[in-house]
Amino acid sequence: MIAGEFELIDKIRRRVAVGEGVRIGIGDDCSVFEVPPGEELLTSTDLLLEGVHFRLDWTDFYRLGRKAVSVNVSDIAAMGGRPLCLYLGLGIPEKLEDSELDQFLDGFSAALSDYGASLAGGDTCRSAYGMTIAVTVQGLCTEGQAVCRSGAEPGDDLWVSGSLGDSALALKLLQAGQEPPASLAERHFNPEARSVLGKELGRERLATAMLDLSDGLVGDLRHLLRASGCGARIQLEQLPLSGDYRKSLNTDAERWNLALTGGEDYELLFAAHADSRAQLEGLAQRLMVPLTRIGVLTPDAGERTFLTNEGANFSPEMSGFDHFSSRGAVDD
Amino acid sequence: MIAGEFELIDKIRRRVAVGEGVRIGIGDDCSVFEVPPGEELLTSTDLLLEGVHFRLDWTDFYRLGRKAVSVNVSDIAAMGGRPLCLYLGLGIPEKLEDSELDQFLDGFSAALSDYGASLAGGDTCRSAYGMTIAVTVQGLCTEGQAVCRSGAEPGDDLWVSGSLGDSALALKLLQAGQEPPASLAERHFNPEARSVLGKELGRERLATAMLDLSDGLVGDLRHLLRASGCGARIQLEQLPLSGDYRKSLNTDAERWNLALTGGEDYELLFAAHADSRAQLEGLAQRLMVPLTRIGVLTPDAGERTFLTNEGANFSPEMSGFDHFSSRGAVDD
Repeated sequence: MIAGEFELIDKIRRRVAVGEGVRIGIGDDCSVFEVPPGEELLTSTDLLLEGVHFRLDWTDFYRLGRKAVSVNVSDIAAMGGRPLCLYLGLGIPEKLEDSELDQFLDGFSAALSDYGASLAGGDTCRSAYGMTIAVTVQGLCTEGQAVCRSGAEPGDDLWVSGSLGDSALALKLLQAGQEPPASLAERHFNPEARSVLGKELGRERLATAMLDLSDGLVGDLRHLLRASGCGARIQLEQLPLSGDYRKSLNTDAERWNLALTGGEDYELLFAAHADSRAQLEGLAQRLMVPLTRIGVLTPDAGERTFLTNEGANFSPEMSGFDHFSSRGAVDD
Repeated sequence: MIAGEFELIDKIRRRVAVGEGVRIGIGDDCSVFEVPPGEELLTSTDLLLEGVHFRLDWTDFYRLGRKAVSVNVSDIAAMGGRPLCLYLGLGIPEKLEDSELDQFLDGFSAALSDYGASLAGGDTCRSAYGMTIAVTVQGLCTEGQAVCRSGAEPGDDLWVSGSLGDSALALKLLQAGQEPPASLAERHFNPEARSVLGKELGRERLATAMLDLSDGLVGDLRHLLRASGCGARIQLEQLPLSGDYRKSLNTDAERWNLALTGGEDYELLFAAHADSRAQLEGLAQRLMVPLTRIGVLTPDAGERTFLTNEGANFSPEMSGFDHFSSRGAVDD
């Protein structure tokens, strides 16, 4: 059972970072701030629902608070922007303990601070059912430089950050009653938004089109291809897979399937001109974020080819994985 | 059972108004737009949860869609701004029929159009429990002219728009198994945001402090008084009560209690200098919105006095009404 609403609001105010650049934050009907001249505003919203996106018996509240921030900041990164402030809508069920709420807010606040963002408002209420987390994020980018999904062209390379499938494999193991390796569990429960990478890719105008991977590479790639009017040819052996991921799955087909369809990677998928390769490799070194060239865009808008080194065509099985976290974002 | 996620997103795109002033709306990781020079951005977020804010067996989906927009636009009005665009997070339970979702989206879209706003993004997913509606609204106002809660001074008049208690009475009757008069039911299921009034009060700089009434006059007044460092003396016989409201409640005490504590009025409560009275009466006539002077602000920050015409002191009974819609907003 939670404390009274006003106590809760005070608790949130005490715990979260005060916003720079926000003239009026928590405590009025709206937040109020100016967008600096030459900047554009980026906005995205995400729902996290108990029983769909998280199960309370698997998660700790600190990491859930962090994740609520990270998955939103990831959308700002995917546009090449920098996060400014977030809004937290919180539906709190009776069963939630004060200490659990405190941990959630501590995690939320720590992640805000890590990404250099602040909390500028929200809405709290009780929930008659599960815990409900609705987060909206606002960010900024230089006018006209937001990296959309539609800017890629045939011949562009296709790149992905980090490694794929770790989060989905952790979830799959949990669903089978097994303990996932710690490195995979961390990717699932505490994903990190590629905030610095996204900002740099935008600032240096290296990405021609970009999005963040939340629904799985195959599904998210489709958005980019549809928006840009291109096809794609992916080299399966190029997919970046972590050591624990490789160890936990026995066959190439299993590895490719989950890496292609698993979801919740929160890595950046982007297209870039072939003559940007050296610059991208330099950026990867400087930021210490792996960047892997996994394929190329083609002029045939219908093409989605997944090729082995031997040139065989692989068809990812979308239905092979029970997608606990079934998400469909209007804007992500 | 709902259609697939991509069908749903397409359905939303087809139904809702395309945004003016929004460079990139639905269909990328974020919306993107510039805030015009000389303007400030206003943002607010609200959760509407099944079983807390609405019951599916009492509501029709068209009006629920409208209400989801109106309660958010009301926060923009309360700052003296004009709404620009909204973001819709929607958690959809299995039990929801396609036709119900269509009605919800039709109501949402119609309300957007009425307020001159557009949908710029969102997030849809299934809900394992109840229907979840998370809306964020962005609006604009002239730089430095947002009407905060903190600008009122002792001696200012206290004004309220429309009539009080209608929504709360409708809910109370529904909870008792009775059919509320249509005029009261409409106030509960389809409240109208005082969007034009709020904008004019801001533009003409008539309100020194303002907020919208969502939690009941007594509770919301407290926010304004705390922010402005004032007390208040309210004349009970001045409270604006509708004909059906008066007819349905027998005693003054019942009428005052519910009007003071009921909640979900979505009227504007504002302070104004005493020399603005004639201008405010003119504005009320021009906009055909009743504006009623209900009291005065006092220098004693602790004072909250509710007086009868005979000068007797009335204590509203906060506990007399089972607040089905228990809301506590960080920013509203």
